[in-house]
Amino acid sequence: MNYYKLPAGVQDVLPEEYYNLSLLSRRLEEKFRLAGCRFVQSSALEYYDTFAEIRNRIPQRTMFKMTDGDGALLVLRPDMTLAVSRIAATKLKDEKARLAYIGEIWNNSEATGNLSQREILQAGVEFLGEEGAFSDARIIAFAVECMQAAGLSDFTVDVGHVGFFKGLLSGAGLSESLTERIRVAINAKDSIGATMLLKESGVGGRAAEAVQALPSLFGGEEVFARAEKLTDDPTALAAIAHLRKVHRLLKRFGCENYVSFDLGAVKSLSYYSGIVFTGLTKALGAAVLSGGRYDRLADDFGKHIPAVGFAMGLKRILIALERDGKVCTPPPPYAVIVAGPGAEAEAYAEYLRLTADGKTADLWTGGYEDGLAYAKRKSPEVILVATEKGVEKI
Amino acid sequence: MNYYKLPAGVQDVLPEEYYNLSLLSRRLEEKFRLAGCRFVQSSALEYYDTFAEIRNRIPQRTMFKMTDGDGALLVLRPDMTLAVSRIAATKLKDEKARLAYIGEIWNNSEATGNLSQREILQAGVEFLGEEGAFSDARIIAFAVECMQAAGLSDFTVDVGHVGFFKGLLSGAGLSESLTERIRVAINAKDSIGATMLLKESGVGGRAAEAVQALPSLFGGEEVFARAEKLTDDPTALAAIAHLRKVHRLLKRFGCENYVSFDLGAVKSLSYYSGIVFTGLTKALGAAVLSGGRYDRLADDFGKHIPAVGFAMGLKRILIALERDGKVCTPPPPYAVIVAGPGAEAEAYAEYLRLTADGKTADLWTGGYEDGLAYAKRKSPEVILVATEKGVEKI
Repeated sequence: MNYYKLPAGVQDVLPEEYYNLSLLSRRLEEKFRLAGCRFVQSSALEYYDTFAEIRNRIPQRTMFKMTDGDGALLVLRPDMTLAVSRIAATKLKDEKARLAYIGEIWNNSEATGNLSQREILQAGVEFLGEEGAFSDARIIAFAVECMQAAGLSDFTVDVGHVGFFKGLLSGAGLSESLTERIRVAINAKDSIGATMLLKESGVGGRAAEAVQALPSLFGGEEVFARAEKLTDDPTALAAIAHLRKVHRLLKRFGCENYVSFDLGAVKSLSYYSGIVFTGLTKALGAAVLSGGRYDRLADDFGKHIPAVGFAMGLKRILIALERDGKVCTPPPPYAVIVAGPGAEAEAYAEYLRLTADGKTADLWTGGYEDGLAYAKRKSPEVILVATEKGVEKI
Repeated sequence: MNYYKLPAGVQDVLPEEYYNLSLLSRRLEEKFRLAGCRFVQSSALEYYDTFAEIRNRIPQRTMFKMTDGDGALLVLRPDMTLAVSRIAATKLKDEKARLAYIGEIWNNSEATGNLSQREILQAGVEFLGEEGAFSDARIIAFAVECMQAAGLSDFTVDVGHVGFFKGLLSGAGLSESLTERIRVAINAKDSIGATMLLKESGVGGRAAEAVQALPSLFGGEEVFARAEKLTDDPTALAAIAHLRKVHRLLKRFGCENYVSFDLGAVKSLSYYSGIVFTGLTKALGAAVLSGGRYDRLADDFGKHIPAVGFAMGLKRILIALERDGKVCTPPPPYAVIVAGPGAEAEAYAEYLRLTADGKTADLWTGGYEDGLAYAKRKSPEVILVATEKGVEKI
């Protein structure tokens, strides 16, 4: 085989992409920091059980697994929120905390298409210890702020609530696995699939109608009234009442125009416990941000901590920025310095002077002629030649 | 098992350590950038063959291995220099380049002691396309600059040259594996072990005396004269002549006081082809920087690119800074904002105002009383309470 090929679904980051990824992550880091977040980083290597044997388990087939020297099964970090929950529950003194992270997660699903990646660079936040409509509105507003800070335009944050779907089916006495299959169909906006599953499970009448209506329940605040007409279930109605409160706050925050509602967005029911939201950009037509409330996630790590947060996919955002013509070319160095014979120390001293001044100075240390050719290829603002008499621009 | 334990040799990075690691990496990134480096990042997942089937192979026992869906063997990136060489040889237009990186490597060796880690965060550079004494002196001077930029004091960079050792044994006709065993003994300053291996292999006379003297050949420039007396081998003498040139340049660069020489430092002979160097601090008594010249490393990836570079261990540097009392406590937020009843929008507006001004503002979104307690624990410069009438300091 060729030694220089890479496995499917992973890439090298070359200088120009790195430069733009780094500008992007600096902007988000600053945004997170100003909002009071403190950063944590978990290890890329964790025990399999931490992710597979908990209630909100990650499907084992999607994890990269290794065996440790003592026979224990290890995985590459498959999820950042669970890792941060673990840290908050077991290592921080104050469980009321705003935590942030930048790092990779790995997903061993089959990699197809250019947006399917097995190594995913995420920046995200977890706000721990608060709950209620204000807390939910605040995290959605923060998602909007962060999409703006990332440089995205033409984006929306789609907000749903898993309680509405849960409520609609709560009286039907369905098994967990059947509920899950219906959820997957609804979340994929597959009405036909959902209808067939409802028939199969004997759910009829008002509940079936309401579930079948879910994929079309998206838009502005008018969605709430439409939803309320579909059900009498108190859990489902409470979810709508909550979303109304969140919407009123978002209006007062001035973020209303960036937000829409989608009751058919039903992400994982075991992971999320309340609002769920997704940031979408027109340029990409795919999610660049994903979040929600997960009040029971830390339970497995021994503490009950209400929590809400989101993760942003940095490489996807970069693709969106690229399509909008918003990526930069890294600037050339200010100077390339080439040393004439015997003038190495003069050239080095010039490099020290320029860089102490904050100027980029690339000191060539090969032959003189090669150096001039190198300097021209780099197109610096100045090409400097050091001789024993001093330094000259050429 | 407990879901919240971590495998041996890896750790979570908690907020205070993250803050200091991030200050450290920003300083080094800036230093690398000013010297004209462009950053690259390789994937954490690579094919086993890329590292195990090349001439400069990484021992397979030290790598974390996984099987891919198609049966191919994958590893967690065990070495950054090889990954960067692969990128330079196969993906960059100009093979004369200064590349930099910050990222983890993983080493599956048994983790013992608090400096032995299986997940190692490194920042480093590779200067590609230049060779000779000026290039070598420049990278050593840059190592000194970077140790200073990291905030280290009381450090030295120990410089050796693999050519001296190679030259001493070149006439003895030893097998590669025996040469390797002698090298390991010399590199560990194990004179007795080296002596026994020399006897076993029938090497005697001047060559044996010279090899036995290696572990004591360290210090200032006086080492060169002592070394030259030990041998007539042209390769060994050329290595010393080269080090003399490098030393003269370092003197003229003004770095002399930070550099010492150690001819018994013989790192891997298949990886390194010329100078080798190690940065040591008094506070730690262990290497925090390691580098050298590896002119043949890219050969396996299809190109011959002379190269020299080094990697710094960020977590080890942080331990050294800690012992010298040079780590910081992250600053508290400027403000914690608590909303009175119905004043959520006023509180959010105040958060926007302060953060637009570059001030850290932590907006509490839970209950009022909880918020006051939270604010006091955070010790911000100001605690702000928002009411419908406006915002007040308390």
